[in-house]
Amino acid sequence: MKKIAIVMGSDSDLPVVQKAIDTLESFGVPYEVHVFSAHRTPLEAAEFTKGARKNGFGAIIAAAGMAAHLAGAIAANTTLPVVGIPVCGTSFLGLDALLSTVQMPSGIPVATVAVNGAANAALLCIEMLAIEDEALARALEEKRAKDTKAVLEKNKGVEALYNKF
Amino acid sequence: MKKIAIVMGSDSDLPVVQKAIDTLESFGVPYEVHVFSAHRTPLEAAEFTKGARKNGFGAIIAAAGMAAHLAGAIAANTTLPVVGIPVCGTSFLGLDALLSTVQMPSGIPVATVAVNGAANAALLCIEMLAIEDEALARALEEKRAKDTKAVLEKNKGVEALYNKF
Amino acid sequence: MKKIAIVMGSDSDLPVVQKAIDTLESFGVPYEVHVFSAHRTPLEAAEFTKGARKNGFGAIIAAAGMAAHLAGAIAANTTLPVVGIPVCGTSFLGLDALLSTVQMPSGIPVATVAVNGAANAALLCIEMLAIEDEALARALEEKRAKDTKAVLEKNKGVEALYNKF
Amino acid sequence: MKKIAIVMGSDSDLPVVQKAIDTLESFGVPYEVHVFSAHRTPLEAAEFTKGARKNGFGAIIAAAGMAAHLAGAIAANTTLPVVGIPVCGTSFLGLDALLSTVQMPSGIPVATVAVNGAANAALLCIEMLAIEDEALARALEEKRAKDTKAVLEKNKGVEALYNKF
Amino acid sequence: MKKIAIVMGSDSDLPVVQKAIDTLESFGVPYEVHVFSAHRTPLEAAEFTKGARKNGFGAIIAAAGMAAHLAGAIAANTTLPVVGIPVCGTSFLGLDALLSTVQMPSGIPVATVAVNGAANAALLCIEMLAIEDEALARALEEKRAKDTKAVLEKNKGVEALYNKF
Amino acid sequence: MKKIAIVMGSDSDLPVVQKAIDTLESFGVPYEVHVFSAHRTPLEAAEFTKGARKNGFGAIIAAAGMAAHLAGAIAANTTLPVVGIPVCGTSFLGLDALLSTVQMPSGIPVATVAVNGAANAALLCIEMLAIEDEALARALEEKRAKDTKAVLEKNKGVEALYNKF
Amino acid sequence: MKKIAIVMGSDSDLPVVQKAIDTLESFGVPYEVHVFSAHRTPLEAAEFTKGARKNGFGAIIAAAGMAAHLAGAIAANTTLPVVGIPVCGTSFLGLDALLSTVQMPSGIPVATVAVNGAANAALLCIEMLAIEDEALARALEEKRAKDTKAVLEKNKGVEALYNKF
Amino acid sequence: MKKIAIVMGSDSDLPVVQKAIDTLESFGVPYEVHVFSAHRTPLEAAEFTKGARKNGFGAIIAAAGMAAHLAGAIAANTTLPVVGIPVCGTSFLGLDALLSTVQMPSGIPVATVAVNGAANAALLCIEMLAIEDEALARALEEKRAKDTKAVLEKNKGVEALYNKF
Repeated sequence: MKKIAIVMGSDSDLPVVQKAIDTLESFGVPYEVHVFSAHRTPLEAAEFTKGARKNGFGAIIAAAGMAAHLAGAIAANTTLPVVGIPVCGTSFLGLDALLSTVQMPSGIPVATVAVNGAANAALLCIEMLAIEDEALARALEEKRAKDTKAVLEKNKGVEALYNKF
Repeated sequence: MKKIAIVMGSDSDLPVVQKAIDTLESFGVPYEVHVFSAHRTPLEAAEFTKGARKNGFGAIIAAAGMAAHLAGAIAANTTLPVVGIPVCGTSFLGLDALLSTVQMPSGIPVATVAVNGAANAALLCIEMLAIEDEALARALEEKRAKDTKAVLEKNKGVEALYNKF
Repeated sequence: MKKIAIVMGSDSDLPVVQKAIDTLESFGVPYEVHVFSAHRTPLEAAEFTKGARKNGFGAIIAAAGMAAHLAGAIAANTTLPVVGIPVCGTSFLGLDALLSTVQMPSGIPVATVAVNGAANAALLCIEMLAIEDEALARALEEKRAKDTKAVLEKNKGVEALYNKF
Repeated sequence: MKKIAIVMGSDSDLPVVQKAIDTLESFGVPYEVHVFSAHRTPLEAAEFTKGARKNGFGAIIAAAGMAAHLAGAIAANTTLPVVGIPVCGTSFLGLDALLSTVQMPSGIPVATVAVNGAANAALLCIEMLAIEDEALARALEEKRAKDTKAVLEKNKGVEALYNKF
Repeated sequence: MKKIAIVMGSDSDLPVVQKAIDTLESFGVPYEVHVFSAHRTPLEAAEFTKGARKNGFGAIIAAAGMAAHLAGAIAANTTLPVVGIPVCGTSFLGLDALLSTVQMPSGIPVATVAVNGAANAALLCIEMLAIEDEALARALEEKRAKDTKAVLEKNKGVEALYNKF
Repeated sequence: MKKIAIVMGSDSDLPVVQKAIDTLESFGVPYEVHVFSAHRTPLEAAEFTKGARKNGFGAIIAAAGMAAHLAGAIAANTTLPVVGIPVCGTSFLGLDALLSTVQMPSGIPVATVAVNGAANAALLCIEMLAIEDEALARALEEKRAKDTKAVLEKNKGVEALYNKF
Repeated sequence: MKKIAIVMGSDSDLPVVQKAIDTLESFGVPYEVHVFSAHRTPLEAAEFTKGARKNGFGAIIAAAGMAAHLAGAIAANTTLPVVGIPVCGTSFLGLDALLSTVQMPSGIPVATVAVNGAANAALLCIEMLAIEDEALARALEEKRAKDTKAVLEKNKGVEALYNKF
Repeated sequence: MKKIAIVMGSDSDLPVVQKAIDTLESFGVPYEVHVFSAHRTPLEAAEFTKGARKNGFGAIIAAAGMAAHLAGAIAANTTLPVVGIPVCGTSFLGLDALLSTVQMPSGIPVATVAVNGAANAALLCIEMLAIEDEALARALEEKRAKDTKAVLEKNKGVEALYNKF
C-alpha cells in the first residue's frame, strides 16, 4: 500500500496532527511524520516532496498555521495530492491559516480541510487510496457505519432522557 | 479509468464549473456533469452519490454557493473523495460558501479548493486517480512543466521590457 | 397542541440546546429532543423530518456548529418551519455556523436566531403556535411583561445606587 | 386567513422586498406592505406593530439595511413571529445588517433569513400559517415539488449536453 | 451644568459602564444611570429619552451588546447627542455591537466609541458640554496634560531600564 | 455661533464630505473646510487643530480612508469634540477606515459615524451646538419631524399601491 | 547603488506593480523586474533569490495575490529585506493576500505594505538604501516636501471654494 | 553602526516588544527603547522622530494596538524606514491594529509585520542595516542556518518517534 506523509511546519503542531496519525493507525495505513518548514527548511521540504512519489507515498498531509505556506510549498513540488490542515494560531482564530492554505492559484491544488481538521485530512488520504483498494473502501464504510451507530446510540440516550410526550 | 462526477447546486454555477470540465477534458479523464441541489433535490443527490462508487466514479466534485451544503451532503453519502468548490455569490464574496464547505465535522471530509477554484478541483481529482496511474502522473508532470515554462516565458518578456540596468 | 422537535447535530450541543428545552417546558409546550447529524445520520435525519408533520410536530429546531448543515438539511425535507441555532464552535466564534445556517437558497427557508440563541429559538416556535392559539399568545404576553418588569426592577436598583443629582 | 405584514425601513428596499410580495401573491396569502423606519418613525412602527395581532396579522416581515434595527424594534412590540430580512447596503455587503438583525437578546426573537432573502421570508411566514392550515401546507408541498422538478429538468439539460462517457 | 444620562441595555453591562461613571465623577459632571432595554422596555426607554432635554440632560450615553439597538433607539427619540458604547459580547468580539451601533442611517446620528470604550464615551460628553463651558474645557486640558505627563514618566522609566547606547 | 471645521485627508474625499457641508448649510451653521493629511501635513493639521477652540470652532469633523488616522491625530491635539467619518476605500469596504477611526485608546475620544456617514457627522455637531442653543434644538426637531413626515408620505404611496386586502 | 528586485507572481500583477517601477525610476534607483511564481517556478524563484545579494540587490519586492506565498518563499531564501505587496484578487478584497503575506513566522520577516500598495513598497526600499546614502535621503525628504506642498495647494483650493465665514 | 529605535504606544506593550529587544541584543545591534503615544504625546513622538536620522538611528520600530496610529504618525515625520508591529488587543484579535498599521496611504510607507511579530520587526531592521554591512549579513545567515538546524533536529526527533514503516 502507498504510504501517507504527514508534514508539519513546527513540532508545536503535533497535538493537532496527532489525530491524523491516530486515524491512519486505526486503518493500518502506513505513514511517515516529518517536521519541515516552508520558510526555515525550504530545501529539505522541497527535496522530501520531490522524492515522495518514487519513495512510495500516495499523498501528503501538510499542517501549518499563520501565513500557512507549507501545503502550497509542498504542492508546488509534487503532483501527488496534497491535503492542507490550517492550524489555529493565536491571532485570527485560524482564518489567516485557512485563507493561506485554500486560496491556491490555478494549477497547484491543495485539498483543504477545516481548521485543525487533522482526522479528516487522514480520512481524505485514505479515501484517495481506497479509490483502487476495495478492502480499504470497505474499512471506510465500516467506520462510517460505526460513526452512524454512535450518533444513533447518543440519540437513544437523549430521547430516553427527555422525551415524555 | 475511473470517472469523475461534477455536481453543481444550480445550473447558474456552470460558468464556474466549466474550468473543471475543460481540465478533465484536457487530460482525457472521463466525467459526468449533474445538477443536484442539496436542498431542492436531496433525494436525487443522495441516490446518485450512493451509487457513485459502483457506477465507476473515483471522485466527486461538488460546486455550490451561499450556505453551500452540497459538498457536505454528498460526502455524507459516500466514502469516495469529495472535492468542494465554494462558489462566489452576491453577498460575502464567497466567505459563506467557503466556511460552509470547509468546516466539516470529523468523520466526513470535504477536500476544499479556493473560491471558484474549479480548475484545481479537477486537477485534485486527476492527482487522486494518478496515485495508481503512472501515465496520468506523467501527464500531470507535463502540464506542470508547461505551466512553469509559460511563467518563464512571461518572465522573459517582462525582463526584456523592463530590465536595463 | 402541536409538538416542537429539537434536533441537535451532536450531544455536545446539549448545554446550548438546554435553554430551548427549558423555555418550551415553562410554556407547557410539548416537545421531543433528538440527536441527528446531517452528515453522520443523513437517512435518519431525513426520515424523522419527512414524518414530522403527520407525527404532530408544528415546527423543528435544529442546532449545529461549524459547517452547520443540519437546519438546511432538515428544511430540505419538510415544509414545516425550521428554526436554526448556529452553535459557537472552537474556530471563527460561530461565524461559520451562522453563515452556514442563514444563507439558505431561495425556496428552502431557515429561520435563524443568534449564535447559541436557543431560548429565542424556542420562543419563535411558541410564537408560531400562538398564531392560532390565544392562550399561548397570552402566555407570551405575560412572559414579555415579566421580562419588562425584571428590567425595570434592575433599573430601580441601579438608579437607587447611582443617581444622586 | 391571517394576513402577513411586510414592513421596510425605506422605500429604497422595495426591489428587495418585491420577491416577498410575489411569493405571498403566488400562494394567495393576504398581506399588507408598509414603510416604517425604526429611527425616523419609531412611533408609527410601534403603533402598527402593537395592533398587528388584533388587526388580523399572523406574522410580520421586516426588511432593513445597515444598523438594521427594524426587525428588532418590531419584535420588541409584539409576540407575533417577526421575520427579518437583512438588506445588503453599500458597505460591508450586508454583514452589518445581518448581525444587527440576527444577534437579538434572549426574549425577543427575530427569525432571520439570508441577506436580501425576501422570497424565503415570505415562505417562512406561509409555513407558519400552514401549521394549522392543511390546504396551505399542500400548496407548499406542491411548490417544493415544482422546484425539485425544475432542478431535475435542468439536470437533464446539462446531462444531455455534457455527458458522453 | 447639564446632566449626562448613562443608559445600559442590561445591568450586566455595569462593569463596562463603570468607567464612564468614574470619568464623569472625576470631572464633577452630574449624571444619571439607568437600565433600559431597547427590546424589553422600549416604552420606558423612549419616554425617558423624549423627556431628557427638558429634564436637564445635555447628552445621553447608551451601552449595549450583540444586536446593539439601544443607542439607535434612543437617538430616534431625541435630538440630544447620543454616544454609543458597543459592548463586547460572547460572540463576534463586539463586531456585531459595533456595526449595530455605528452604521446608523442618515438623519439619526450615533457618536460611536471603541468596543467597551466607556471612559471615552464620558470624555466625549464632557467635551460637548465644554464647548460653552470654559472651566470644563480647562479641566479637560489639565487631564490631557496629566495623561501626557504619565506617558512621559513611563517613558523615563523604560529609557532608564533599557537604554545603554 | 461656534463654527464647525470639516477636515478631510485628501480632496478625493470631497464627494463624501459634501453631505456634511450641505447639512451645515441647511441649518445655517458656520463652517470651514480644509484638506489636511495626518501623514503628509501633520504639522499643519496639528497647528490648525491646536488653534481651533480659540479660533471659534465648536467641533471638528475629520474624514479619511484606509488607515484613517486623521480623526485620531486631530483628537490628539484638541479637547474639542472630534467626529470621525471613515471613508470607504478600494479595499476592505471601509472596514479598515472604521476600525482605524473608532478603536481609539482611552483618553482621546473620536465620535465615529457610519462609513461615509457625512450627513450624520454634521448633524452630530449641530446637536452638540444645540445643547446650549434652543433655536438650533428647535431646528433639529423640525428637520426630524420633516424626515418623519417624508417616510410617512412614502408609506402612504406604498400602501396605496400594494394594499388591497 | 544597490539594485531593487521587483518580483511578481504573475504578469497580470503588472498594473499594480507599475507604480513601484515608476517610483524607483523617479528616484533613479536601479531595479530589475521579474515574473516568478512561488508555486509554478519555485526553483527559479529560489535560485534568483539566493543569488540576489551577491548580484548587487539591496532589497526585493514581491507582489502576489490570493494565498500570496511569494514574498514568504523569497524571504525563506535570503536575508535581504523582502517587501511584500498583497495584490487584491477577485475574492476577499485582498484580505487573503494580506494575511498570507504579513502573518510570517518568527525568523522570516516580510515587510508588508497596504493591499496594492506598490508605490510604498518602492519607497520603503529607497528608504532602506537611504540609511547609508545621504543623497538618496535628501531626495526622499524633497519628495516628502513636494507631497506636503501638493496637499497644502489642494487645501488652498478647497478653502477658497468653500470658506466664507 | 546605526541604532534602532523601538517605540511603543504604552508600556503595557513591553511584553510584546521584549522579543525585538532580545533579537537586537543577540545581534549586538545598538538600540533605544521609548514609550511615546501618537495620541497622548504627539509632540514628543514627532520631535524624537524628526531628530532620529541625525541622532544616529537607521530605522524605527513602532508597536501599538487598537487604532494603531503610532507607526504611521512616526512615518509621517521621518524618511527613515519605519517598521510597524500591530499589537493584539482585547477586541478584534489585532485585526484593528493590523489594518490601522498596514493600510497606509501612498507616500508614507510602514513596513508591517505579523500581529505581535516583534522578533521579525527587529530582524527586518537588522536586514536593512546589513544591506551595507557584510558582517551583519553573515550573522543573519548564521542565525538562519541555526534556525534551519533546529527544525531539522526536531524533525529527527519526530521521525525517530513516529516513523516505523
